[in-house]
Amino acid sequence: MGAAGAETKPVRVAILGASGYTGAELVRLLLGHTGVEITVLTGNTQAGQEFSAVYPQFHYAKDLPALTRHEDHDWKDVDCVFCCLPHATTQEIISQLPEHLKIVDLSADFRLKDIETYAEWYGGEHKAPALQAEAVYGLTELARDDVRGARLVANPGCYPTAAQLPLIALLKAGLILKDDIIIDAKSGTTGAGRAPKQGTLFCEVSDGINAYGVASHRHAPEIEQGLGEACGSKDVVVNFTPHLMPMSRGILETIYVKLADGSTVEEAKAALEKAYAGERFVTVLPGAAVPHTRHVRGSNHVFMNIVADRLPGRAVILVSMDNLVKGASGQAIQNMNVMFDLPETQGVDMAPMFP
Amino acid sequence: MGAAGAETKPVRVAILGASGYTGAELVRLLLGHTGVEITVLTGNTQAGQEFSAVYPQFHYAKDLPALTRHEDHDWKDVDCVFCCLPHATTQEIISQLPEHLKIVDLSADFRLKDIETYAEWYGGEHKAPALQAEAVYGLTELARDDVRGARLVANPGCYPTAAQLPLIALLKAGLILKDDIIIDAKSGTTGAGRAPKQGTLFCEVSDGINAYGVASHRHAPEIEQGLGEACGSKDVVVNFTPHLMPMSRGILETIYVKLADGSTVEEAKAALEKAYAGERFVTVLPGAAVPHTRHVRGSNHVFMNIVADRLPGRAVILVSMDNLVKGASGQAIQNMNVMFDLPETQGVDMAPMFP
Amino acid sequence: MGAAGAETKPVRVAILGASGYTGAELVRLLLGHTGVEITVLTGNTQAGQEFSAVYPQFHYAKDLPALTRHEDHDWKDVDCVFCCLPHATTQEIISQLPEHLKIVDLSADFRLKDIETYAEWYGGEHKAPALQAEAVYGLTELARDDVRGARLVANPGCYPTAAQLPLIALLKAGLILKDDIIIDAKSGTTGAGRAPKQGTLFCEVSDGINAYGVASHRHAPEIEQGLGEACGSKDVVVNFTPHLMPMSRGILETIYVKLADGSTVEEAKAALEKAYAGERFVTVLPGAAVPHTRHVRGSNHVFMNIVADRLPGRAVILVSMDNLVKGASGQAIQNMNVMFDLPETQGVDMAPMFP
Amino acid sequence: MGAAGAETKPVRVAILGASGYTGAELVRLLLGHTGVEITVLTGNTQAGQEFSAVYPQFHYAKDLPALTRHEDHDWKDVDCVFCCLPHATTQEIISQLPEHLKIVDLSADFRLKDIETYAEWYGGEHKAPALQAEAVYGLTELARDDVRGARLVANPGCYPTAAQLPLIALLKAGLILKDDIIIDAKSGTTGAGRAPKQGTLFCEVSDGINAYGVASHRHAPEIEQGLGEACGSKDVVVNFTPHLMPMSRGILETIYVKLADGSTVEEAKAALEKAYAGERFVTVLPGAAVPHTRHVRGSNHVFMNIVADRLPGRAVILVSMDNLVKGASGQAIQNMNVMFDLPETQGVDMAPMFP
Repeated sequence: MGAAGAETKPVRVAILGASGYTGAELVRLLLGHTGVEITVLTGNTQAGQEFSAVYPQFHYAKDLPALTRHEDHDWKDVDCVFCCLPHATTQEIISQLPEHLKIVDLSADFRLKDIETYAEWYGGEHKAPALQAEAVYGLTELARDDVRGARLVANPGCYPTAAQLPLIALLKAGLILKDDIIIDAKSGTTGAGRAPKQGTLFCEVSDGINAYGVASHRHAPEIEQGLGEACGSKDVVVNFTPHLMPMSRGILETIYVKLADGSTVEEAKAALEKAYAGERFVTVLPGAAVPHTRHVRGSNHVFMNIVADRLPGRAVILVSMDNLVKGASGQAIQNMNVMFDLPETQGVDMAPMFP
Repeated sequence: MGAAGAETKPVRVAILGASGYTGAELVRLLLGHTGVEITVLTGNTQAGQEFSAVYPQFHYAKDLPALTRHEDHDWKDVDCVFCCLPHATTQEIISQLPEHLKIVDLSADFRLKDIETYAEWYGGEHKAPALQAEAVYGLTELARDDVRGARLVANPGCYPTAAQLPLIALLKAGLILKDDIIIDAKSGTTGAGRAPKQGTLFCEVSDGINAYGVASHRHAPEIEQGLGEACGSKDVVVNFTPHLMPMSRGILETIYVKLADGSTVEEAKAALEKAYAGERFVTVLPGAAVPHTRHVRGSNHVFMNIVADRLPGRAVILVSMDNLVKGASGQAIQNMNVMFDLPETQGVDMAPMFP
Repeated sequence: MGAAGAETKPVRVAILGASGYTGAELVRLLLGHTGVEITVLTGNTQAGQEFSAVYPQFHYAKDLPALTRHEDHDWKDVDCVFCCLPHATTQEIISQLPEHLKIVDLSADFRLKDIETYAEWYGGEHKAPALQAEAVYGLTELARDDVRGARLVANPGCYPTAAQLPLIALLKAGLILKDDIIIDAKSGTTGAGRAPKQGTLFCEVSDGINAYGVASHRHAPEIEQGLGEACGSKDVVVNFTPHLMPMSRGILETIYVKLADGSTVEEAKAALEKAYAGERFVTVLPGAAVPHTRHVRGSNHVFMNIVADRLPGRAVILVSMDNLVKGASGQAIQNMNVMFDLPETQGVDMAPMFP
Repeated sequence: MGAAGAETKPVRVAILGASGYTGAELVRLLLGHTGVEITVLTGNTQAGQEFSAVYPQFHYAKDLPALTRHEDHDWKDVDCVFCCLPHATTQEIISQLPEHLKIVDLSADFRLKDIETYAEWYGGEHKAPALQAEAVYGLTELARDDVRGARLVANPGCYPTAAQLPLIALLKAGLILKDDIIIDAKSGTTGAGRAPKQGTLFCEVSDGINAYGVASHRHAPEIEQGLGEACGSKDVVVNFTPHLMPMSRGILETIYVKLADGSTVEEAKAALEKAYAGERFVTVLPGAAVPHTRHVRGSNHVFMNIVADRLPGRAVILVSMDNLVKGASGQAIQNMNVMFDLPETQGVDMAPMFP
């Protein structure tokens, strides 16, 4: 957030549900974005408080608006809304926002295009099906043109972002099989949110690891939707096994795939390099270098590589990403930039923070 | 270590290479074992020092012998040797020890039965092939009878222990296929040892994760050897992908398998329960409970479960274990107990430490 | 917990409020205590569940009783009660327990002898003042004789245990001044309990540190009470500044003191060594060795040292301890052992777990 | 690093010793600085390698120069040198650099103005005493005018930066006594550097804390020098007790001071607020808010507060800071900005990264 260029007016931004981690991360990133101005921060249970009372790292940022209730705004001073509200509550609130607003929704409400799949996985009928039909799934690198014209962007889930970037490229190139994809994912604990739960207490998470949601995590159908579109099939099913890690940020996915008949790992790597040549935020690592979550921390970068398996005809894809940046708030800003014709990297081109 | 029963003399124990983490862990556990006496601790580069100068947690244990050089002993006051020396140096030292000693070797030197496989993976000809032929691979639950009569036990590697316990039981029962086994392993950093390396510095390990040794880790052939024996095949090849984790202790393995034609996950779970019924240190968790590394920390326990995959015909096995205990020093003592006709659980039956 | 000696009946133990961390730690330690039997575990909000459903590390311990409500017991099959209930609720429950029970209370309810100090710091009148008058403050090494005859022992707080052990010895020896004691304490997060709170989430605690409760922590009056008794003064006031650390267990206190006129650091160190000579659980480190919390983790040991300050006439005391063991459940068992004429170290003499 | 304004040429920067953590942090920050260009990165033991081979987080930054030997440069394409070489080696190398270069030295070589104090604490005669006499101690907020005209700035140590900011302001205001200052400091492990050492391995640092260098740390005389100047005394001696923490970045200092006769904590707080009013990087927290290291992580911000002690006449100062940013590379860039008449906050005004 800073002095915009003389010739353009800043995009005026509201963050709904700013008291969660993705809200705070949006604030962190937008404070360094020279083309926007944060005008509204809502947090209904903490309305009336300074934002620094909720996130003390912003004690120095005297210009931030205090938290307010979203019902208390007429949105005339806002151009863009980032919606960080919980799943299911989001759809109703968004459907009542005025038409002039462009919206990036970080919840899962508009990600699944099939209304029945949504109902099955999220436990109820969708309350804004017309909006859902209109929403663009904002995996920016793969949907840039659609995002540009969108009013409502469904920002992808963190796990699906990391999984789809390599897998869609390889499926489109016909280099891997769609029927035997195993995604072993390891996530930082911010992914579980800031609401106090026993399972995310320091003493329950530190110095250990465990799987959770095996064969039942809601990001599985989101991944399958993207892969299905990539290979023109409605029947893609994947294994998706997430693990909770003692790290605050980061996702590593180790993806086990079968190569298509006659394909090689070298061809697959070349396909990834070609698909993401020129992309600022996707780097295919050289040689046998493996992606570390630490090496993308705090940034919008995705690091990936593919290597041969010991099992003949198989390969291992490795992808790392910061779940709060490219997996949430960073990609959301990337999408906003595209929607408002700003340079796509503006405000999200910071270097990773290591160590 | 304490007053042995009136009727039996304590087993007099030497630890060679006591200055590494597995050596220190043996000392920790043996101090609570009422049937042994630690008479020798060697550490050639730190010979002459009190053990508490190297491991200050033992400042209170005034009776521990100081570190000495292994060349300086005649071994007359020793019954059992735990050998914690580096791979490759071990075989020559052990081959020169007197015949009256029983030996548990925690290095990899005697684990691989095929001398050519050893040479291929460990970079050189084996220097004590006769001893290697005699050595018993000490996965205690599965080799108890052989261990009982052994003079030299090759203590299994940490990753192979966790992988083989469920997989051998399932292969023997004919419930999974041998040709499509994927082992995604996550290990604590003690597995990398105490020698200073950039890659295991706090700032390089904390708050993140990365794979390493993809398709090239030395524990792969050890796992394949055990699985091959279980299903009577020389051609078992597995995917084995280890990851380095910000935790001191613990291994979690998430193993992706294909069920044999007509087999079910329920049958597989029943087979695991049957195989380990009555085993103190192997627990098949009830229902959908997932093993956490935290829940076995500091103990000799192995927790496992098997659940259905979303991919039809596939299942996911989850196994957790403390790499320094069941994966090294604890299993070594378990083997010693069997070799000396002591109760198998003596000295290693402590509860896990959580949190 | 195991086969008691043939000649003695095991002490039958109940743990009230077993679902907290100190309850689980009592279970961990008592499972290794050969002179007791756990007959009752209460947890009113989780009554009816297996203990392993609340603490999955005990899945292997099939003999543990399930959680019950404390109202549902007549206590006839119990000899000793460990009370791990929250502050303030404890006093009423304990006052209703039958007379034949010996009780170790791990709450703060009976620690402060002055009823007005209690009311001031704990926000209300004491509801069992007669019991409070009878309770013995169980800093075992310094109160062994009183503990032996006690029916109700108030188990000391974690911070006060670490602070009082060195300070009382030095004040009694007249080697430090009572008017200028500064205690900078660093604690593991288990000290904050298992109830979900935003402030103890992994992402709020890891990779950082902060002070809390500056000049207002309830352990200050408890420390002052002990120091006041040691030097025969009612007016001891200390600085006590606790910090929350990204570690599960452990307390380190760095204590800044003024030496009495003419006294030296060497005399102070000699006084500590003399005070704790022969004590199994208190070790004064040699030379300039500094206590690490890691080196006492999981054990009942206290490590301490005292070194000269750069400020003339001042010294720095360093003390480390596991807050869940010597700072809570371990000392509670030590007290139980004394109360029931068992060997004082039984069940709590395990080696520290490092790394 | 980016397109500089049309009207000004970018400052061309060299980083000597770029392979350490402070070097990598300079690169991270300078990549976001629009007024500079990185033209030289030296690292003599790794010369010839891409910087991304040493710090893989920069795999995406294709424009960074490879590592070279500092002897191989004639410095004609360089305006500013950041020197991150080890203590003692620095002074000779800097004394041979051409006159046109402006230099910010991050080592300790030029921090101590008294040549005998240097020799005493750093173990040898200074080899560039003339340069030392010329060097400006760059605690930017307090030395801005001197820094502006300097050719060589000695960038302050991390601990001294955090200690001096509040203490100098309070000593100058006459509100605290100079003779009774106790600094209990807690530091992240990056402060110990990237060279492999047993003491900074993950397994030796995680989940614990210990003091080190008690009464003998080299930052003590540096702090005393600054405080002595502030109060016009050569005899200031402080207690300085650093602790090693399981966090990568961050310093928290808990400073115990005596108020001057008749002074109050409120006056002291007002003095701090006045001293740092208008300073972008120093924030005095409101009310009783305590500084967390997490809340300044990755940023150049310093958070501080002062609160009343329970000991009458005493107060507790709390200060947090990122040791790699304001404690090293961030302040170095802040100094460079001042030396080159760039906006002081350019390139170092990013928001803290929490969580």
